[in-house]
Amino acid sequence: MGVDQGDPVASLVDSGTQVVVDFTHPDVVMDNLRFCIENGIHAVVGTTGFDDARLETLRGWLAESPGTGVLIAPNFSIGAILMMRFSAIAAPFFESVEVVELHHPTKADAPSGTASRTAELIAAARREAGSAPIPDATSTGLEGARGADVDGVRVHSVRVRGLVAHQEVILGGLGETLTIRHDSLDRVSFTPGVLTGVRRIGSFPGLTVGLEHFLDLG
Amino acid sequence: MGVDQGDPVASLVDSGTQVVVDFTHPDVVMDNLRFCIENGIHAVVGTTGFDDARLETLRGWLAESPGTGVLIAPNFSIGAILMMRFSAIAAPFFESVEVVELHHPTKADAPSGTASRTAELIAAARREAGSAPIPDATSTGLEGARGADVDGVRVHSVRVRGLVAHQEVILGGLGETLTIRHDSLDRVSFTPGVLTGVRRIGSFPGLTVGLEHFLDLG
Amino acid sequence: MGVDQGDPVASLVDSGTQVVVDFTHPDVVMDNLRFCIENGIHAVVGTTGFDDARLETLRGWLAESPGTGVLIAPNFSIGAILMMRFSAIAAPFFESVEVVELHHPTKADAPSGTASRTAELIAAARREAGSAPIPDATSTGLEGARGADVDGVRVHSVRVRGLVAHQEVILGGLGETLTIRHDSLDRVSFTPGVLTGVRRIGSFPGLTVGLEHFLDLG
Amino acid sequence: MGVDQGDPVASLVDSGTQVVVDFTHPDVVMDNLRFCIENGIHAVVGTTGFDDARLETLRGWLAESPGTGVLIAPNFSIGAILMMRFSAIAAPFFESVEVVELHHPTKADAPSGTASRTAELIAAARREAGSAPIPDATSTGLEGARGADVDGVRVHSVRVRGLVAHQEVILGGLGETLTIRHDSLDRVSFTPGVLTGVRRIGSFPGLTVGLEHFLDLG
Repeated sequence: MGVDQGDPVASLVDSGTQVVVDFTHPDVVMDNLRFCIENGIHAVVGTTGFDDARLETLRGWLAESPGTGVLIAPNFSIGAILMMRFSAIAAPFFESVEVVELHHPTKADAPSGTASRTAELIAAARREAGSAPIPDATSTGLEGARGADVDGVRVHSVRVRGLVAHQEVILGGLGETLTIRHDSLDRVSFTPGVLTGVRRIGSFPGLTVGLEHFLDLG
Repeated sequence: MGVDQGDPVASLVDSGTQVVVDFTHPDVVMDNLRFCIENGIHAVVGTTGFDDARLETLRGWLAESPGTGVLIAPNFSIGAILMMRFSAIAAPFFESVEVVELHHPTKADAPSGTASRTAELIAAARREAGSAPIPDATSTGLEGARGADVDGVRVHSVRVRGLVAHQEVILGGLGETLTIRHDSLDRVSFTPGVLTGVRRIGSFPGLTVGLEHFLDLG
Repeated sequence: MGVDQGDPVASLVDSGTQVVVDFTHPDVVMDNLRFCIENGIHAVVGTTGFDDARLETLRGWLAESPGTGVLIAPNFSIGAILMMRFSAIAAPFFESVEVVELHHPTKADAPSGTASRTAELIAAARREAGSAPIPDATSTGLEGARGADVDGVRVHSVRVRGLVAHQEVILGGLGETLTIRHDSLDRVSFTPGVLTGVRRIGSFPGLTVGLEHFLDLG
Repeated sequence: MGVDQGDPVASLVDSGTQVVVDFTHPDVVMDNLRFCIENGIHAVVGTTGFDDARLETLRGWLAESPGTGVLIAPNFSIGAILMMRFSAIAAPFFESVEVVELHHPTKADAPSGTASRTAELIAAARREAGSAPIPDATSTGLEGARGADVDGVRVHSVRVRGLVAHQEVILGGLGETLTIRHDSLDRVSFTPGVLTGVRRIGSFPGLTVGLEHFLDLG
C-alpha cells in the first residue's frame, strides 16, 4: 500500500505493514522513521539529507528496537553502485584514474554528486593501499582544462543536450586502460535496487548506509 | 638473470635463483617446471598449453616439494583480469549481458580467447545465481548479426586495422547499462602483473591458476 | 492543425494548409499524397513502404503539379543522417570499416534498418572510390562471431536491456581509428528534422528522397 | 631519396627530385622552402611554426615560381582531419557540443593543439550559421569541472597512463547525441596523409594550408 502526504501514517500499523519505502523530503523523513522504528517497521530510505548527527539519532532509536532495520541509500541504481565499487577496487592497481561525468545541460551542479562520491572512494582506496600520487605533467594550458580536483582525483563535467546521466571512470597503467561506464537513461533503473532493499532489509537489523551492503559483491 | 634457449638451466641453482619467470613453449615448459620444483625454485608461468592432465602432474610434483609455488596465468594483464572478474560479479544483477571484442584484422581466431573466457565466467556466475536466460526477441534478420553464442552469452568480434586488443562487456537492466571496457595497446601491460606474480609467489606454495588469486580484489 | 484518422482530409484545403506532415501507414499514404499534390500542398513524409514503383507514381503526379514538393525521408533524426553521411565520406580513406548497432532486446530484426542502410552506403562509396576489399584474416572460430555481411561490410547487432537505439561505425587505418557514434534516446529527436523539412520543402519542388538533401552538409 | 641534416640540399636538384617532404625544424624550414620553390620542387611540409608572416612570405616566393606547390599541414592524420571537418559541419545542427581529449600524462599542454583547433573550427561554423550560444545551467560546483572555454566551446583534457592520443567531440540535441572520436595509437598513422600530399601536390600549384584541401570530402 502507499501512503501519500496527509494520510495518517498510523494506518501503516493497522495494516500490518512490514517494510516502508521512504522517498520523501528531509523535513519529514526523521518523523517518519521514528514512527516506523517505534512500531518495528523496517524502512528503505532514498530521501536525502542524512548527516552524521541524523545517522547517530537513528542508531539511538534502533538500539531501542532490536530486530528493526533501516537502510539509507544515496543511490538505488545497481549500475551506479557497481561502478563506484569496481572503481574503488581497481584504483590501487593503476597509476592513473580520472572521472568523466556527462549530463543534460540543465543540471545545476558540476561535478555531479555521484562523480564526487566516486572520486572520494577512489582516493580513499588509493590512500589505504599506499598508491603514489596520480602523474600529471601539465605545465601549460588553459584554466579548467584539467577538470576539478576532488581529493587528488580529476573530475570532468560534460553538459550536452540529449544526454541523461552518464559517468565514465578511466583507469590506466603501462600499455592498458580499464574503463567503467554507467549510463542511466530512466529513473526506472532504481526499481530493482529498491526491491532488493525491501526483500533483504529483514535480514539486516540496525542501520545500514549504502545498498552495496545488501548485494553479494564477492 | 635471464636464461635463454641452450643455456644450462642448472645455472639457476648455482646462482641461487628464487623465482623463475617462464614465457617459453608448451614443448619445454614441463621440463623447466620439473627442474624448478625439484630445486625449490618458485615459478611464474605465462606459457600456454596447460590442460587438466598437466595441472595434475604439477600438483603431484609440488606435493613432494612443500613450500614451492607455481603460478600458471593465462593472462598477466591486470586490466583484463579485472574486466573478467567485474563482469562475472555484475552479471547476475542485470537482465542482459553481451561481449564485444575488437582486434586488428590479422588475428586468426574469432572470438578471442579472452572474450570466450569472459563469456564462460559470466555464464557460470549467472547459473550459480539462478539468473533467467538473457532476453532476445530477434525473429528476423541476417545470419551472424547476433554474434556467436558462447554458453548462452552473445559475443561479437570486430576486426579493424588500427585497433590493437580491446574488449567491452555491456550489461543492462531497466533504464541503465554498465559497460566494462579494457584497451590493451602494448604488451608492456603484462609487466606489472608479472612483477606482482614474482613478488607474491613465495606466499602461495602449491599450484595457483590465475593471477587474480594474488590480487586483493575485496 | 492536425488531421486524425477519419477526419475529412478535404479540411486541409479549406484551411489553407501549405505543408502536410504524414506519419501514417503504407496503406493510406498514397491516397493522402495524391490529394495533397492535386491541391498544391507540400508534403513531408515519414511513413514507410516506398518502393521504386511508388516513387515513380509520385514523380508522375508531381509532374502535373509543378511547384509542389514532396519529401520522403526514411529517417528524420539529423544525428542518424549525419552518421550515415560522414561514414560514407570517410569510408574510402580507411582500410577497414565495421558497423555495430545496439538496441533493446525486444527489437525483432537484426541488423537494424539503419545499420543495413549505413553498410550499403559505405559499400557504395568504397566501390566508387575503387577501395580494396576490407581485410579479414579470420580462419578459425565460432559461427556468427564476425557478424553479418552486408555488401561486404560486417554488421554486429547487440541487444541489451536498458539500451534504446545506438550505432557505431568504426573506421581504421594504420595506427588510427575514427569512430562515429549515434545515440538516440527519445523519438523527440525527430522533431528538428521534421521542422527542417517543413521549413524547406517549399524550396524543393518535385520529389526528394532523404532529408540530407535539405541540410547544408558542405 | 632522403636528405639528412648536413647533406647538401643542392643534391635534390641534381637528382631530379620533384617533391620534398619536410618534417624538420622551424629554424631551417624557411631556407629549405626557398630553395625548393626557386628550383621548382614541390614541398609537403609537416614542420610547425608557420604564422601569417611566414605564410605571406611563402606566397610571395610562389608567385615567382608558378606551377610549384607547397602544402603546409598541421596534421597529416586523415582521421584527425576528418574528425575536425565532420565536427565543424555537424556543429550548427545541434544545440550543444563539447570536446574531450585524452592523452598520456607526460603531455605538457592542456588542452592539446588539436582540441583547441577543433573547438575554434566548431565555434566559427556556429557563428557563421548564427547558432545560439551553447546552453549551460551550471550554477554551483568546483572550479575547473566544466573544462576550459575555447571560443565558447568547452574542452576537457584527460591525462591517463596507457593512453596515447584520443579525442571525442560530443554533439547533442533533443533526444540524441552524435559522437565523433579519433584514436591515434601510432605515428605511422601520418603515412597515408603524407603519401596523399606527395601524390597530389603537383595538381595544387601555389600555397595550400591543410591536407583537407587535397581530400575529396564531398
